[in-house]
Amino acid sequence: MPITGDQTLLKQINRMAIVRRVRQQAGQSRADLAKETGLTKSTVSLLAQELIDEGWLVEHEIQITGALGRRPTPLSIDPHRLAMVGAELGVDRIHVVATSLTGEIVWQADEDFLSVDAEGVLQRLASLLIDGIVSVRAAGRQVLGAGVGLPGAVDESAGILKVAPNLGWRDIDVATPLRSALTNAGLGDLPLYLQNEADVAALGEFEFGEAPVPEPLVYLSLGIGVGAGVVVNDRLFLGSAGFAGEVGHSILQVAGPRCSCGREGCAEAYIGLRAIAQQSAGDGDVQASAGTLVARASAGDPLTISAVQRAGHYLGVLMQNLWTAFDPGRFVLGGPTCELGAPLLDAARETLGRYARDAGLPPPEVRVSRYGARAVAAGAAGMVLHKLVRPL
Amino acid sequence: MPITGDQTLLKQINRMAIVRRVRQQAGQSRADLAKETGLTKSTVSLLAQELIDEGWLVEHEIQITGALGRRPTPLSIDPHRLAMVGAELGVDRIHVVATSLTGEIVWQADEDFLSVDAEGVLQRLASLLIDGIVSVRAAGRQVLGAGVGLPGAVDESAGILKVAPNLGWRDIDVATPLRSALTNAGLGDLPLYLQNEADVAALGEFEFGEAPVPEPLVYLSLGIGVGAGVVVNDRLFLGSAGFAGEVGHSILQVAGPRCSCGREGCAEAYIGLRAIAQQSAGDGDVQASAGTLVARASAGDPLTISAVQRAGHYLGVLMQNLWTAFDPGRFVLGGPTCELGAPLLDAARETLGRYARDAGLPPPEVRVSRYGARAVAAGAAGMVLHKLVRPL
Repeated sequence: MPITGDQTLLKQINRMAIVRRVRQQAGQSRADLAKETGLTKSTVSLLAQELIDEGWLVEHEIQITGALGRRPTPLSIDPHRLAMVGAELGVDRIHVVATSLTGEIVWQADEDFLSVDAEGVLQRLASLLIDGIVSVRAAGRQVLGAGVGLPGAVDESAGILKVAPNLGWRDIDVATPLRSALTNAGLGDLPLYLQNEADVAALGEFEFGEAPVPEPLVYLSLGIGVGAGVVVNDRLFLGSAGFAGEVGHSILQVAGPRCSCGREGCAEAYIGLRAIAQQSAGDGDVQASAGTLVARASAGDPLTISAVQRAGHYLGVLMQNLWTAFDPGRFVLGGPTCELGAPLLDAARETLGRYARDAGLPPPEVRVSRYGARAVAAGAAGMVLHKLVRPL
Repeated sequence: MPITGDQTLLKQINRMAIVRRVRQQAGQSRADLAKETGLTKSTVSLLAQELIDEGWLVEHEIQITGALGRRPTPLSIDPHRLAMVGAELGVDRIHVVATSLTGEIVWQADEDFLSVDAEGVLQRLASLLIDGIVSVRAAGRQVLGAGVGLPGAVDESAGILKVAPNLGWRDIDVATPLRSALTNAGLGDLPLYLQNEADVAALGEFEFGEAPVPEPLVYLSLGIGVGAGVVVNDRLFLGSAGFAGEVGHSILQVAGPRCSCGREGCAEAYIGLRAIAQQSAGDGDVQASAGTLVARASAGDPLTISAVQRAGHYLGVLMQNLWTAFDPGRFVLGGPTCELGAPLLDAARETLGRYARDAGLPPPEVRVSRYGARAVAAGAAGMVLHKLVRPL
């Protein structure tokens, strides 16, 4: 498709090409960028100046060396003047963060909710997003846009949460109430993006990870629900109907325990927080919160520790299966279940490692998200950046 | 990356854009194509005439209607003048076909081999490829290139078969002997492409399927080995090291039967031809050929029928798991195991359907490849077309 007719779009493509190059490798000069992008030096200089003026890029000090005289000025991403706001609408909690262009969290807020009345919950979500935008602006940053991660399958272009089993929601229009709240707050021009929670967390790891981030990147979201977000060829892998990565409902054991989805032997029925709580409770109280389980495990409760290790083992089986399907360059684990720490993660790594040894292959890389419980909210901020630097 | 400096490449991109549009919808006029591609009418006319002269396109009869006078001439892909040659190097057999641009098989040859001496096998493969090229040319077609599907992980750019467990090969340079045989036969200029067998079969279904082919397309290769090829965003999904789609080694049952790969409970240990043969043999002779099993099942042997149904059930579990991972728009099943027909396929559809019902979702589309045992060879021909119509 020829695009040269649309000068504004073409310019934005070239501007964002420069931003992406500088992100890949900080410290490049205008001359380096001209060589790499194929743009003329004067075009690069013009666009770089705009990007500096707008807060995307920053110039380092000019380096004077005796031998070489004045060196070209290195450019980097500016972490100080722009921000994106991201939110997670979870099953019982809203997280909101604002991040810099380089992924540092510069503002955050959390709020629990008990009711699952969609209208009320979305009103609270909108209000917290607006709080974030207003606070970040008051601190002197310009806000580029807002993103939201949702706990289910999302129709991104329609802005609809199609199915959120753990909330009991179906076909909820999320975009309209959020947009109208933003408009009422005088923020109607701000771009707003919605996507599934594991998908946005994957984008966060992809955008804010140290370059180069290996592909495919598979983010595993571990909480009450279990799902994956996959980034490949610089984009989210969404599948034919937005259900790709619903790997919490892949079968790890034929005729295994019944899952919340109705099937038997799903990964979520072994690895989901409710399954771990059930296993760890014995005859006691079933408390599905990660905090409760962490406390019990730390207190040395043998039933809890063995339940967590069992879940870790099945997490290793799930990763083994996703390894054969996607051949990821990196797994990233995130979500509240990760708070269970070593008993979970060691068991998962041990199982994955055993499968790798049996097959005579080196195991894939496995990391834990640096954002912890805020991986989805930070990812939603990362999604805004992901969209903006890819105008096509 | 600006590409307008390279006029030859730019022209080839525009030519192939026209070919792809006509493939998507036959019967378009030059004016339609100008509108859709954004090229000028005179450029489209010039390029279309070249493509007609070279055998890519054909003009239909001009339609005269009373009311509208002379109508624009519709263009279609020409199925008569060009061909691609494709080969499958299997575990014990070589298939070679030549196909038209629209996927009809216009020539074919098969040869069994007993030795797994790489040098000798590759010599036979080269010889059959050359036979195909020479025969198709003698019948008046020009040959655009040759493709080969290999039974293992392939380093495409180096032309190396990295691991082929069922042949016992590791790091075999396939490209060099094939190229040198082609050069010796005066065919050194012909493009040659190599890739994993499931991947090339997926490309065949994608290139030769009726447009539009839904994405992601997941081709499941069912034989002694079990693997998948995935097409998404118009390209093969290969993973970080070319191992994506090695789903025969995903775990369907923790601590299940030992697989040839060394792991336990892999899909291949339930669905692979050797596993079916083992189950069906009882105390008798283990014969892993699909033909033997088909004969036994047709003769009503209850042990064979139940072994095939059991494999079909696990095939349904595997598809359920790939459904959650990739959310395919279409599954296509191919390879020798498909010759087992209804007992296998009905059981697979029944299991997948049950999982879908349990989850309250419509099951994904499942088709059997129209190329039967030649799905990989036809796919290798399709891979040539896939590469040529995507110059970038």
